[in-house]
Amino acid sequence: MTEAQAGDYRILHEAALRDYLAGLPDIAARLGNEPVSWSITEVGDGNLNLVFIVKGDRGGIAVKQALPYVRLVGESWPLPLSRAHYEFLALSKQAELAPGLVPAVLHHNDGLALTVMELLEPHIIMRKGLVAGTRYPRFVDDITTFMARTLFFTSDLALSTAEKKEAIAAFAGNHALCKITEDLIFTDPYRIAEQNRWTAPYLDALAADLRDDMELHVAISRLKLKFMASPEALLHGDLHTGSIMVTESETRVIDPEFAFYGPMGFDLGAVLANLLMAYFASSGHERVPGERREFEGWVLETVEQVWNEFARKFLDLWRTKAGGDAYPVSLFSGEQGAARLEIERQAYMQRLFTDTVGFTAAKTIRRIFGLAHNIDFELIEDPKQRAISEARAVRLARAMMVETGTYRTIADVTGAARKLRDWMPELSN
Amino acid sequence: MTEAQAGDYRILHEAALRDYLAGLPDIAARLGNEPVSWSITEVGDGNLNLVFIVKGDRGGIAVKQALPYVRLVGESWPLPLSRAHYEFLALSKQAELAPGLVPAVLHHNDGLALTVMELLEPHIIMRKGLVAGTRYPRFVDDITTFMARTLFFTSDLALSTAEKKEAIAAFAGNHALCKITEDLIFTDPYRIAEQNRWTAPYLDALAADLRDDMELHVAISRLKLKFMASPEALLHGDLHTGSIMVTESETRVIDPEFAFYGPMGFDLGAVLANLLMAYFASSGHERVPGERREFEGWVLETVEQVWNEFARKFLDLWRTKAGGDAYPVSLFSGEQGAARLEIERQAYMQRLFTDTVGFTAAKTIRRIFGLAHNIDFELIEDPKQRAISEARAVRLARAMMVETGTYRTIADVTGAARKLRDWMPELSN
Repeated sequence: MTEAQAGDYRILHEAALRDYLAGLPDIAARLGNEPVSWSITEVGDGNLNLVFIVKGDRGGIAVKQALPYVRLVGESWPLPLSRAHYEFLALSKQAELAPGLVPAVLHHNDGLALTVMELLEPHIIMRKGLVAGTRYPRFVDDITTFMARTLFFTSDLALSTAEKKEAIAAFAGNHALCKITEDLIFTDPYRIAEQNRWTAPYLDALAADLRDDMELHVAISRLKLKFMASPEALLHGDLHTGSIMVTESETRVIDPEFAFYGPMGFDLGAVLANLLMAYFASSGHERVPGERREFEGWVLETVEQVWNEFARKFLDLWRTKAGGDAYPVSLFSGEQGAARLEIERQAYMQRLFTDTVGFTAAKTIRRIFGLAHNIDFELIEDPKQRAISEARAVRLARAMMVETGTYRTIADVTGAARKLRDWMPELSN
Repeated sequence: MTEAQAGDYRILHEAALRDYLAGLPDIAARLGNEPVSWSITEVGDGNLNLVFIVKGDRGGIAVKQALPYVRLVGESWPLPLSRAHYEFLALSKQAELAPGLVPAVLHHNDGLALTVMELLEPHIIMRKGLVAGTRYPRFVDDITTFMARTLFFTSDLALSTAEKKEAIAAFAGNHALCKITEDLIFTDPYRIAEQNRWTAPYLDALAADLRDDMELHVAISRLKLKFMASPEALLHGDLHTGSIMVTESETRVIDPEFAFYGPMGFDLGAVLANLLMAYFASSGHERVPGERREFEGWVLETVEQVWNEFARKFLDLWRTKAGGDAYPVSLFSGEQGAARLEIERQAYMQRLFTDTVGFTAAKTIRRIFGLAHNIDFELIEDPKQRAISEARAVRLARAMMVETGTYRTIADVTGAARKLRDWMPELSN
């Protein structure tokens, strides 16, 4: 946010928003008819912001305005408005690198922490579709293009160090949002914290186990340090299935307000963790035992393809678009050099996979024992059934975090998930 | 450099410098007598800057002014004046964290890229002392205090992520200096580059070997990536024995213009590499074979103590001053937690040692095949003898970089160095 605009902030509720939008000729033209006739609906179901859908007779828009506090909690938890600035920066960069895979920005006002975007219709939040058992045939191709391109082109493989360091600095100020992740994902679920919750009483013993599990605490602390101090690429920073809007033929990644330069495995792990949770939750949504088996097969296949297609696309970019300062081609000339660099590319991907396995686990555990849960599990009405699904996910996550090195391929992950499909945990009661 | 001052820059040669200093009451008072009587001598023997020693009847000062190009090469290689700003920032932080181990800053002018410091007298550049075979009994304690404190207190173990990210951003603009390191240390010595040189013809075959050694190219590329994108702590960035001034009772670290947030092992490796080069060069400075054996023993003992004392002090700080966001103590409560955290501290130091081994090797090879050489070797008059010393250092460095994991302790390094003391390489001719 620029100094000049910092004083302009005010929360725009319906009437003020209508006036504000009426003053933007391009937006008003896109909506059509008279401002007084526009319908304005507040639809924000996230944790942080106001989100309005505005419709006129010609078209619609989405308006997102940051609040100076965490909406979920209230004014007692302040949060900088500058996150709207970083979200706008990230959206702009993502639009450039992955055209068509993020909503188009129509207007942005740093002072108001407000962004006007195209209305995504009839897209729905992917998580809701997964809860309903819907398959998305475009998803693998779109999300892997999004991740491969946004991560590769903001990494040292594509950028000069001068460009990279300036980009890191440009996002460094978004640390309050990173801190939320550091606390809620990498710390609180492993200790007593007021905001933690879980499916009680069934998971009480498991929650206590996690708090006493020092191998797990070392593993999560290493991941936390990697999250804090490994600016490998520009991350979305919150890439769960609630940040992805889909139809059967389109995918849009939204809400990058947690964007910063961090470890690539964190974005990958977010996608994989949320697919795996959809998988483990699935049996809890069955009306007839086994009716969602086919859907579950699709989810695990999607898990495999997300990693495999991501790796294939990322490697292709590295082979053809490497203009960065890392791994200079001049050190790998000739046939022998090219062959050796190719082996190193594979080793690099293996290291990235190992990071991804760890972050996948971290993103899972926080949704079951931390502050923010997800509807995959929450909509399982029978708490005991919910606890069973959650315990299966936690069992895999714990193993992935502590025995990370034994998961060498994505098939090792899906194989382990498959084995846990009908595993019956011991529950507290 | 602030905008307002950016236009003020002019190179201050003797007369202009005298006038400028005369206008600074505190400086003038420190020098005593009339400005016209001050002696002003340009003594810059580094590669980048002007350095003046100014003396009056009461005292002396050192004045360093950055030139807008690389002094060693000339105006054809421009270099931002802003490095003086980063050097001042780093000196200030180091003075706060390691009081008494850096020169006191008496005046700084960002617009002129000029810093006035206390005159270090009778200190000499440590490298010169090592060439002469002088031992420095204070060195281990001082340099390990400097490194342990500057690295620990700027790391995630001591800082909140908000503080850390703001500090990273504050130094991000110094990327032109980092680029010099990236090119001259991590790239050029391993490929044909105009500025490379070595002791020809004796090392011609070895130079060609390095250019074809793909295992080495992978290893140096991994180290380069770590250098570029692992902002673990505020590094000095150029911590060789030419950046350390000593007497038998005092140590001062100077010239942190390459300061940035990078991997801790890079500073540690700089110190160790330059000690090891002093060791390998030593026999080349003997007038009577074996006369410097005792000195060489002291050098290797110093190598061991530098790592061991650094590790001890760093761990002590971690145990007693950990206020940062990494490894939160709340995850390691109770006796069992404390014990597990202590094991993890040792594992952390082992990872840092592995990094250090790699960077030590990188800092060695660049001094033998790259642009910037050092007088440890250069002052060995007989080029064949010089080549023998250099080949021994390279043999160790190559092994340390490619078989890094086999060097588990600092004694593994000094043991290997000892074995190479009288090894006779095959030379080209």
